[in-house]
Amino acid sequence: MTDETIDDLMEATYQALCKHGYAELTMQDIAAESDKSKGTLHYHFDGKQDLLESFLEFLLDDFEERTETIAGETPSEQLHEFLDQLLTPSDEDSSEEFRTAVLEIKAQSPYNEAYRERLGEFDRVLRDRIAGLVADGREAGEFRADVDPDEVADFLVTLFHGAQTRAAAVDRPPERTLAYVHEYIDETLRPEGSERDGAALETDAGAEE
Amino acid sequence: MTDETIDDLMEATYQALCKHGYAELTMQDIAAESDKSKGTLHYHFDGKQDLLESFLEFLLDDFEERTETIAGETPSEQLHEFLDQLLTPSDEDSSEEFRTAVLEIKAQSPYNEAYRERLGEFDRVLRDRIAGLVADGREAGEFRADVDPDEVADFLVTLFHGAQTRAAAVDRPPERTLAYVHEYIDETLRPEGSERDGAALETDAGAEE
Repeated sequence: MTDETIDDLMEATYQALCKHGYAELTMQDIAAESDKSKGTLHYHFDGKQDLLESFLEFLLDDFEERTETIAGETPSEQLHEFLDQLLTPSDEDSSEEFRTAVLEIKAQSPYNEAYRERLGEFDRVLRDRIAGLVADGREAGEFRADVDPDEVADFLVTLFHGAQTRAAAVDRPPERTLAYVHEYIDETLRPEGSERDGAALETDAGAEE
Repeated sequence: MTDETIDDLMEATYQALCKHGYAELTMQDIAAESDKSKGTLHYHFDGKQDLLESFLEFLLDDFEERTETIAGETPSEQLHEFLDQLLTPSDEDSSEEFRTAVLEIKAQSPYNEAYRERLGEFDRVLRDRIAGLVADGREAGEFRADVDPDEVADFLVTLFHGAQTRAAAVDRPPERTLAYVHEYIDETLRPEGSERDGAALETDAGAEE
């Protein structure tokens, strides 16, 4: 497959998932969203599960690429920005439907080793990115010296999953969680005695200019 | 239906969900776990979805009943105990399977209004219970005066959903979340200057003996 074909099929899979959800999705639905025939899809993929495995890989690659550089001057600003991106849907129209489809795939994960592996890999990447930013912030004196980056990352990833699940299951929008996350970064992670609200820090590490 | 028949069918539904998951579940599977025939099930319920709606109501009633009184001398102890119960599976053998089935139902919620209503009701009960304990603890001087019970409850319910989703989707056990929750209650909610680790409180509210 050419890169163009892959991009076309992945975009078609995204659209079809938003329209039909995971459980009801067929190869025909995906073909209908692309400029390829159902026959072409079957030539490249063994079936819906095989195609969705590739789709999960595509999402992960895309996520890794997009988050390689994160806007922000300091690790703390970058952590705010990163979690903003995670918890703020980029495309309001179809984000609810997509969130639901992803939750359906998560719920299939115990029955499907390939899904489980890919979701596990996504979980690891997410934790690594957050733990990296927390470690950088600690180094720079923006975060408390006794903060454990892995524990903070684990906690924030759990909170992220919770916000996504509640949004889909009981229509509870993730904004409140986002507000909590910002408060957590600014208050719980910040060294005691330092200024809140992103004002100049009074730490003795002084790694920032 | 007699109460006995209902209890039998609800227990059978639980066992069948653990064995077969939600997506593959049939009325026959549920009948096979009960001492009723498939015909009897169809006499009482319009089908699998109707039966599962009753099952969700049954779970909610059971949860409300079980959590009417919570062990613990003080609101803070009760909050610890309540979250312990939520995050510690009671029956290790089938709890993983049941958690997965519940996640499948959550993922179906956007397509099914009756599921959504019942899950929404469960979300409300969960928040109310937690907010009540936090308000009591604030009143008793165990928690900070500026703590907002509704916000704390919302945050903890989100964290609960996250722990359940991650446990099912990426096999990440909820113990770490439980440890975090205990720390949150003992440190973040507690008034500044009061003793940690459940030792005597130095608050001026002095509501405790």
